[in-house]
Amino acid sequence: MNAPRTEAFQKFLRAAAVFGGLEGRSLRSVLSRLEVLRFGKGKAVFSEGELGRRMYIVYRGEVEVQGHAEDGDQVPIVRLGPGECFGEMALVELQPRSATVVTKKPTVLYSLSNLDLYSLFQQDHFAYVIVLQNICRLLSRRLRKADARICGFLAKEARKARPRARAPRARA
Amino acid sequence: MNAPRTEAFQKFLRAAAVFGGLEGRSLRSVLSRLEVLRFGKGKAVFSEGELGRRMYIVYRGEVEVQGHAEDGDQVPIVRLGPGECFGEMALVELQPRSATVVTKKPTVLYSLSNLDLYSLFQQDHFAYVIVLQNICRLLSRRLRKADARICGFLAKEARKARPRARAPRARA
Repeated sequence: MNAPRTEAFQKFLRAAAVFGGLEGRSLRSVLSRLEVLRFGKGKAVFSEGELGRRMYIVYRGEVEVQGHAEDGDQVPIVRLGPGECFGEMALVELQPRSATVVTKKPTVLYSLSNLDLYSLFQQDHFAYVIVLQNICRLLSRRLRKADARICGFLAKEARKARPRARAPRARA
Repeated sequence: MNAPRTEAFQKFLRAAAVFGGLEGRSLRSVLSRLEVLRFGKGKAVFSEGELGRRMYIVYRGEVEVQGHAEDGDQVPIVRLGPGECFGEMALVELQPRSATVVTKKPTVLYSLSNLDLYSLFQQDHFAYVIVLQNICRLLSRRLRKADARICGFLAKEARKARPRARAPRARA
């Protein structure tokens, strides 16, 4: 099923970071390529290791991105709600999915495939460049947050490894 | 000082992930915009919090990307050598630098500014799209690694928080 072409839906899309800056024909170009997907609560949208070819925008509901720990346990990484997107790495490089995404509520998603993006590249170059710039910004923002988080973990480990501070010596 | 236009240097550039896929005129377009910078050992290329407008490719030497822990200490995040680039987030979003980068050896860097990228967008759109696609791929790859690292830290914390596994009960 394709995405609705209502004013309200166009407004939602323009507010989503990945489609910001798209107007008029370019917005309609992207809109006409979106596919709607509905999931009940607790369903996997995709699983780590699968070959990904689609990115998703949350329209309603909530999903959890889960990583894979060494012992096989799923570790929750982040939760995403309306307007947020995930799986965009699959549009940029053909690699297996690096995480599992599971719905935490009944969820409606809109999806764009790498073939859609390629047809955009050929047929509406302007829209393609805007979406690519937005994906770049999105990845950059996520990397910034991820680096800050890693830094926090590293600092915590360094604190533990460091010997306790000595009491200051009394001056003579 | 500008970048050399030798065959060897062009070969180096084509092998760098951020310039992969550039050939002929497009490669020369990018090359003509690069600026060379030389640093002694132990010098800061940029510091966390500064407004960044340039990305850098390591030509010779080595740099260390350092984050900032809550207690003010610098925490090493990653080391980068020849062919690798850093600071590319500044070409994508105007934000303060999220990390400090310090040279660990005498280092030669080539640099491209956001104004260079914008002039590429205007004058050599093909080269612009290739560089943007490469930056996207680079960010995606880094985010993938960062997520895996976060996952490792989270799993370690979960293991510590979990009560020790009980010995299996003897069956009746």
